[in-house]
Amino acid sequence: MNSFGSLFRVHIYGESHGSGIGVLIDGVPSGIKLTLEDFTKDLSKRKSGKIGTTPRKEDDIPNIISGVFNDFTTGAPINIFFENKNTDSKVYTDFKSHPRPGHADFSATKKYSGFNDIRGGGHFSGRLTLALVAAGVIAKKILNDFIFSSEIESIGILNKLEFDKKLENYLLETAHSGDSLGGTISLTIKNVPIGLGEPFFDSVESVLSSIIFSIPGIKGIEFGAGFKGTEFLGSKFNDCFIDKSGKTSSNNNGGINGGITNGNDIFLKVAVKPTSSIFKPQETFNFKDKNIQSLKINGRHDVAFLLRVPIVLENAVAIALADLYLQNKKIFF
Amino acid sequence: MNSFGSLFRVHIYGESHGSGIGVLIDGVPSGIKLTLEDFTKDLSKRKSGKIGTTPRKEDDIPNIISGVFNDFTTGAPINIFFENKNTDSKVYTDFKSHPRPGHADFSATKKYSGFNDIRGGGHFSGRLTLALVAAGVIAKKILNDFIFSSEIESIGILNKLEFDKKLENYLLETAHSGDSLGGTISLTIKNVPIGLGEPFFDSVESVLSSIIFSIPGIKGIEFGAGFKGTEFLGSKFNDCFIDKSGKTSSNNNGGINGGITNGNDIFLKVAVKPTSSIFKPQETFNFKDKNIQSLKINGRHDVAFLLRVPIVLENAVAIALADLYLQNKKIFF
Amino acid sequence: MNSFGSLFRVHIYGESHGSGIGVLIDGVPSGIKLTLEDFTKDLSKRKSGKIGTTPRKEDDIPNIISGVFNDFTTGAPINIFFENKNTDSKVYTDFKSHPRPGHADFSATKKYSGFNDIRGGGHFSGRLTLALVAAGVIAKKILNDFIFSSEIESIGILNKLEFDKKLENYLLETAHSGDSLGGTISLTIKNVPIGLGEPFFDSVESVLSSIIFSIPGIKGIEFGAGFKGTEFLGSKFNDCFIDKSGKTSSNNNGGINGGITNGNDIFLKVAVKPTSSIFKPQETFNFKDKNIQSLKINGRHDVAFLLRVPIVLENAVAIALADLYLQNKKIFF
Amino acid sequence: MNSFGSLFRVHIYGESHGSGIGVLIDGVPSGIKLTLEDFTKDLSKRKSGKIGTTPRKEDDIPNIISGVFNDFTTGAPINIFFENKNTDSKVYTDFKSHPRPGHADFSATKKYSGFNDIRGGGHFSGRLTLALVAAGVIAKKILNDFIFSSEIESIGILNKLEFDKKLENYLLETAHSGDSLGGTISLTIKNVPIGLGEPFFDSVESVLSSIIFSIPGIKGIEFGAGFKGTEFLGSKFNDCFIDKSGKTSSNNNGGINGGITNGNDIFLKVAVKPTSSIFKPQETFNFKDKNIQSLKINGRHDVAFLLRVPIVLENAVAIALADLYLQNKKIFF
Repeated sequence: MNSFGSLFRVHIYGESHGSGIGVLIDGVPSGIKLTLEDFTKDLSKRKSGKIGTTPRKEDDIPNIISGVFNDFTTGAPINIFFENKNTDSKVYTDFKSHPRPGHADFSATKKYSGFNDIRGGGHFSGRLTLALVAAGVIAKKILNDFIFSSEIESIGILNKLEFDKKLENYLLETAHSGDSLGGTISLTIKNVPIGLGEPFFDSVESVLSSIIFSIPGIKGIEFGAGFKGTEFLGSKFNDCFIDKSGKTSSNNNGGINGGITNGNDIFLKVAVKPTSSIFKPQETFNFKDKNIQSLKINGRHDVAFLLRVPIVLENAVAIALADLYLQNKKIFF
Repeated sequence: MNSFGSLFRVHIYGESHGSGIGVLIDGVPSGIKLTLEDFTKDLSKRKSGKIGTTPRKEDDIPNIISGVFNDFTTGAPINIFFENKNTDSKVYTDFKSHPRPGHADFSATKKYSGFNDIRGGGHFSGRLTLALVAAGVIAKKILNDFIFSSEIESIGILNKLEFDKKLENYLLETAHSGDSLGGTISLTIKNVPIGLGEPFFDSVESVLSSIIFSIPGIKGIEFGAGFKGTEFLGSKFNDCFIDKSGKTSSNNNGGINGGITNGNDIFLKVAVKPTSSIFKPQETFNFKDKNIQSLKINGRHDVAFLLRVPIVLENAVAIALADLYLQNKKIFF
Repeated sequence: MNSFGSLFRVHIYGESHGSGIGVLIDGVPSGIKLTLEDFTKDLSKRKSGKIGTTPRKEDDIPNIISGVFNDFTTGAPINIFFENKNTDSKVYTDFKSHPRPGHADFSATKKYSGFNDIRGGGHFSGRLTLALVAAGVIAKKILNDFIFSSEIESIGILNKLEFDKKLENYLLETAHSGDSLGGTISLTIKNVPIGLGEPFFDSVESVLSSIIFSIPGIKGIEFGAGFKGTEFLGSKFNDCFIDKSGKTSSNNNGGINGGITNGNDIFLKVAVKPTSSIFKPQETFNFKDKNIQSLKINGRHDVAFLLRVPIVLENAVAIALADLYLQNKKIFF
Repeated sequence: MNSFGSLFRVHIYGESHGSGIGVLIDGVPSGIKLTLEDFTKDLSKRKSGKIGTTPRKEDDIPNIISGVFNDFTTGAPINIFFENKNTDSKVYTDFKSHPRPGHADFSATKKYSGFNDIRGGGHFSGRLTLALVAAGVIAKKILNDFIFSSEIESIGILNKLEFDKKLENYLLETAHSGDSLGGTISLTIKNVPIGLGEPFFDSVESVLSSIIFSIPGIKGIEFGAGFKGTEFLGSKFNDCFIDKSGKTSSNNNGGINGGITNGNDIFLKVAVKPTSSIFKPQETFNFKDKNIQSLKINGRHDVAFLLRVPIVLENAVAIALADLYLQNKKIFF
């Protein structure tokens, strides 16, 4: 399913090397000011160009096809389209028979009986996250008091405290060796109202993890104290309330109790795996020749695509929170 | 929302200290043999009674209200109801004004404007997981070749290798000090067909994490190598294919590529927080008296409720996989 | 699917001759007063007992299993259960091989490969409408200003103007001949706010007709001037606005423009087919014996089950409108 | 909501006088051959140009933006876009203050607080039905054995038997007087398998009527004998089975028993209201000037837009049946 949400509904489409990718957003309240400039900041954060990111350059200009009139949302579905310009499909031709390890090549080819568009990863490309960022820009307008901040916590074996000194070298050396890196990213959200989340099944953790794991390459998530917190005694883990606003002395629960926001900061951390595409040759099965062969993946890769993930994470979470926010609007009797 | 799934649909209801709890399961194919005995094994795994679990005893006998005729599923919705018998609500009376840290008391009271049934945690009680286990029994019948195995990896600071020697003492001492423990649990699923998962949004990781985080007290999840894997180089992390079945030399992706199962074992690990209810007094805000007061929670608690979670985790995941399994049935043209 | 609605969600279960039937209602706002007495009036309207209705007597007492605490809704799912008491399944035994014309016997037996519970129609019984009536009682509490009124417009060839003089005789004569009758019912809803309906697909007509056609035996629906209106010229059909409230001079559109309520009365009419079960023998195929045979249906039937449909129609529509009402709550920016 | 379906999912977007309209179709199985030529026949049936239809000319060429690779569906979402070329928005400017009777102008302006794009009806324009036709082309590929045939049964007061002799004159005279016409259309579907439909709520009648009433201007629907059938005795109405295939001697139920197809032809009839836009002046309220004023609607209208509805009806129904068809795929145990 390429749809997310029940009131703020996001539908994603497109392929890496087709005519383009886009997102259809339904359920957006009418009367929200929305212009192309609103997208500039977040889209530029996702762009490549820094050390460690792919040399593929796309201008990533959003085209608002529908749902906006005279710079305001109309209440009708908003279709935002990004044209693909800088595509180069030659190198991807034989990945159905000799699938890239870590990629969707093998599993998708099986699932779609070989009809999937495999060029550039097709519908499974990280390029689809552009659509999440764009939809998140609108979601954030609904959540106008919320403050999102994301931070890379580690890259490979390097902790963020070491970045200034060591990161540039580490990235260059890894690139030089034809290899790749993963890492971890944290997200903090401030000014969250109390009461978001629709348990039993739509706990805040459920809804946020659901959209976060749709970002290609995410392999873990933890809220509050997470895995480390399993070593605490209950008396240490419990976050005691300290004032009438519901503020707590610690935040081991990551701002969520019983699947519902408690008004403290939402805090979560994700694990991003190393880029699957590497230049270094890999010994892996060729399903056509029926034997293990060396595979060298040419093309343009991010050494550490996690460098571009923080804004994707933020905006994906914003989509999910906008949906919970609209669901939580109270009806009084 | 108390509903999960699109083809195999599970709807949960009930409260800890009301007349009972139950689950309505819709979309179950007709013709599946189903008797009360089918539930015995999994339900008994969830029961209390072991060291470290609550003294509340419930016989947990399922009542099949609808959807089964002559011991076979009919295709109509299956309602399974569990009566509450051993309830004792006296001790829970003032948790709306003096909410228990770590519990849903505060956030739910705010969300539902004080109308929530707070007795025993009400609809937020761990007792609701009984419904997940029951629905999972039916899900597993749909997934009849899949093999589920769950294992407690750690309790508090104790690794599973130390359990034989040290666990009993550790639990008793913690109980004695009026405190509680959390831990981690792993789940391995074998014989998973290739092709489950419906990206972009319904990746296997998305769907599994979504239902897993509806289990009260789960605070983290990782697939395959998870957080540790972020330190690997891509050349180490990538799982290379080694034969025509798609078997891989390592399983750092946890059996999932591009959000789709690749036929290798699904492997995941979850973080379970320490039981929130502890006998030890806690200094926390009283919203009625408007000051910080000591709160001592009487009643019956699990020292480490994670001891009862493995079968809940298994069966919750079975529910999600049954839904993906039915969605993946191929149509040929 | 046995579920209806996106915010006010109704899930139906049970069989005619099983342990009972019921309804699970999720998404009900907390804080609505709800007691057993609230159900009495509507449930009694649906009861049999009048001339032309079945001699099967059920006391139809609702059991509120969950979601209500101290006579107020809690925000958790509300399960309402009705026990079956007066069941008599002997006469239904061979309808899988010799299916009753007009019933679901044949199509359901094929669909569910013979595993369907066919006793008393099983999950396809008109008894399931009890669940709609019960859920509608709660829906009407959300729509507290709306005024519903339904009226039987015709029974068989008899127009409502003739009922006083001729109906009793007509029903008795039809019963005597072992035959049955259908008819038409109108529904008017006053005090409907402007703006309900979520086009493109969830037009008011779409949503209302969708739930109305789930009532067994409905075969037609028209809004406003309906089929007769197709003979009007546009200049006659168009409802001109006559004041600032949006009141119109005529109501050929049935209170709905562009799929959205315009504040005038919703007006619709439905066609109810004659009761399928008749005492009169019918020549119809026996799929076991492989020939056409006479089938005489014993048991207890309504001569004209439409006599019991008006409150079902009202409350089914109330369910759909409650869902649209909750969806239409405005968010301001 | 602009989405329809649970497995075959259709999302519609666009406005009459914006950059274009389109449809995103998700859940299409991979491996279906699909080229632009597949759309030609059905799209041309919907076109204007005949007597009684609007002079607005659009070439209506579909652009397949995603989801198709090398002329086969890939399993990813298919976005089909139609550019608007022949737009003329000048005449629509003041319909928010002086709304057209019968149109969405008033109700939509209220619902969307005046932010709706009202040019040419915006998102409420009949032009959106182009998206339904396009999606229906794909749906029919899934239903490749089904045979659809639609027929105009009446226009205004003219029965189809009179069309040859009288229709052209009738349309011209109505046009000349600045007025408009409605009518009725029947749809017959042959070769329908037994077992489609997912009661209780997703009866075939529910699902078909739901999508049919999203077509602008539909005001009634009846299945089989419909309203006329309410005058039959049960012994006449009941469709007796006559052979082992389930064929019935009559088809008063329109091929549907208990909400499930019984293998006989699906037969239904719809009521289409007269075109709301007429040249003839109408006395209707001006909400800005606060009085009743004469309104003359200039622009380009269909005298009888129902002339273009048959293919829309067919393809809308095909969308709904494709969804039911995919849901009905059996799983065996």
